[in-house]
Amino acid sequence: MKNTRIVLASRPRGWPEVGNFRVEEVDVRSPTDGEVVVKNHFLSLDPYMRSRMNEGKSYAAPQPLDEVMIGGTAGEVVESKDPRFAVGDRVVGMLGWQEVGVVDGRGLTKVDPRVPLSAYLGAVGMPGVTAHYGLLEIGQPKAGETVVVSAAAGAVGGVVGQIAKLRGARAVGIAGGEAKCAYVTGELGFDACVDYKSPDFGALLKKATPDGIDVYFENVGGAVLDAVLPRLNTFARVPLCGLVSQYNATEPYGVKNFTMLLLSRVKVQGFIVSDHMDRWPAALADLAGWWLEGKLRGRETIAEGLRSAPAAFLGMLRGDNVGKQLVRL
Amino acid sequence: MKNTRIVLASRPRGWPEVGNFRVEEVDVRSPTDGEVVVKNHFLSLDPYMRSRMNEGKSYAAPQPLDEVMIGGTAGEVVESKDPRFAVGDRVVGMLGWQEVGVVDGRGLTKVDPRVPLSAYLGAVGMPGVTAHYGLLEIGQPKAGETVVVSAAAGAVGGVVGQIAKLRGARAVGIAGGEAKCAYVTGELGFDACVDYKSPDFGALLKKATPDGIDVYFENVGGAVLDAVLPRLNTFARVPLCGLVSQYNATEPYGVKNFTMLLLSRVKVQGFIVSDHMDRWPAALADLAGWWLEGKLRGRETIAEGLRSAPAAFLGMLRGDNVGKQLVRL
Repeated sequence: MKNTRIVLASRPRGWPEVGNFRVEEVDVRSPTDGEVVVKNHFLSLDPYMRSRMNEGKSYAAPQPLDEVMIGGTAGEVVESKDPRFAVGDRVVGMLGWQEVGVVDGRGLTKVDPRVPLSAYLGAVGMPGVTAHYGLLEIGQPKAGETVVVSAAAGAVGGVVGQIAKLRGARAVGIAGGEAKCAYVTGELGFDACVDYKSPDFGALLKKATPDGIDVYFENVGGAVLDAVLPRLNTFARVPLCGLVSQYNATEPYGVKNFTMLLLSRVKVQGFIVSDHMDRWPAALADLAGWWLEGKLRGRETIAEGLRSAPAAFLGMLRGDNVGKQLVRL
Repeated sequence: MKNTRIVLASRPRGWPEVGNFRVEEVDVRSPTDGEVVVKNHFLSLDPYMRSRMNEGKSYAAPQPLDEVMIGGTAGEVVESKDPRFAVGDRVVGMLGWQEVGVVDGRGLTKVDPRVPLSAYLGAVGMPGVTAHYGLLEIGQPKAGETVVVSAAAGAVGGVVGQIAKLRGARAVGIAGGEAKCAYVTGELGFDACVDYKSPDFGALLKKATPDGIDVYFENVGGAVLDAVLPRLNTFARVPLCGLVSQYNATEPYGVKNFTMLLLSRVKVQGFIVSDHMDRWPAALADLAGWWLEGKLRGRETIAEGLRSAPAAFLGMLRGDNVGKQLVRL
């Protein structure tokens, strides 16, 4: 069996380019005892991948050069030497940017066939668990409080607002452009959405948060963060999930309103959901339950074919996608 | 009886000046039922007072113009219409920048005569409770961890390091100048102290924290914060107590290494100790106990006479003092 895969060919400085990736055709090796061969149907593209492309300190070890790019995948078993998996099982895992993966069965999870396979890479997968953990464990919104989330039209942000609504909070999104904001308030049911590209962003944010902000779920950073900080109420919580505006910056943005964290006695907590694997089962059960009840949804932006992954990844970093960015393999 | 007092005459922009204050001579009014007349022996000068001199958002309401400047005091009762207090009792309170105060007895606390009265404005008072709450409730240092504190030669910072040592942690101070660092490592017993005014500050900080930083107790902000952020270990805690470098800034400093909070999954928690009055009795009991056992100490810088208070206050904001800045009345 043949496999097409994409490896990291070189490390970008600033914005990555398609040329930082290389497509390879290789033979699929035979599985050994305990291993499973999976044909991937969907590859997830996520902002965290940009950090992994750098050398030096990040969440985790850098993505090695000339190896398959890291990534979440959903697919089906085509060969199994793990008795827990049979040919045809639908599974999710971290098989990376490739059509076929051979992995230890312990790295795979069987999924509920009632939920669309692609949702396990979005609202019912890592992005959903990220939203669930950050909002409920760190943000702890109470009914009647105001929750603001940046990148609200993204895979994580969209779930944050929907869970906030389920908890009785007011959900306000921040997104880039009118089309995304229409999606956030329309399809996702947020109470309001503010376009950070508007010249009136500050005034619009104030209008959308008349009682201030109790929880700010941060995915973006930069000038958006500086606009939000003065709106935070006393004892506000800031789950710090991402800073996508900074991932391609060659000079870091200086956060000017840091002092507001002191004046308003705010808690900021950086987190990455893979530190908290013990919370995944309960979170996934919540998310799948809400999905099946029709209380959780999310649009997908799907690129066709593995070779489209690099360009789709760059587009996601620019914010071209609405909802979850996937590649169909 | 006559009283000399100092009121806020005008609001500064940037650095305050002696001319922002005005000395007044007034008659002391007679106490009504429940009130106590106190002759102050010591006035505490603290960085938080600078924030109160501004209009606009701060911890609390701004200091009103033409009223006695807010401030902690220690003195003795000279007349009492509260049955809980007798003439000669040693008391602490918030009587402000004045020689004599007439206050509701509920605003006073009788103190242990075995502890020097002035210590109740320092290590066994508000600064000590601030250190205790911030370090133990938010910082939660474990034995063997590294605790770094800025303004380590100040009233709060000195206590932070001493409590860290009592908990078995490594205590590293940051202070301005060799004399202060000698005080921090010598008299206060920190393991190391780094002079932020040194051109080699970054390298010296690295050398003083070979295992990184687990708790950073922040009193200063600005470039010192930016130097510390990349040294924070995964899951570090940052009790955010003060940002004295910013209080007189007309343009805020932009924090460039904010991204490290995400990469290292750091918790930053702004706090002010007056939000947590329920924790004061236990903290004060700890602090007084350590003081009487000789485990807690701190130098005092004492200005003589109320009229010296404005200049001494400006000196403290510049970092002229070592240890607790007081005015003897």
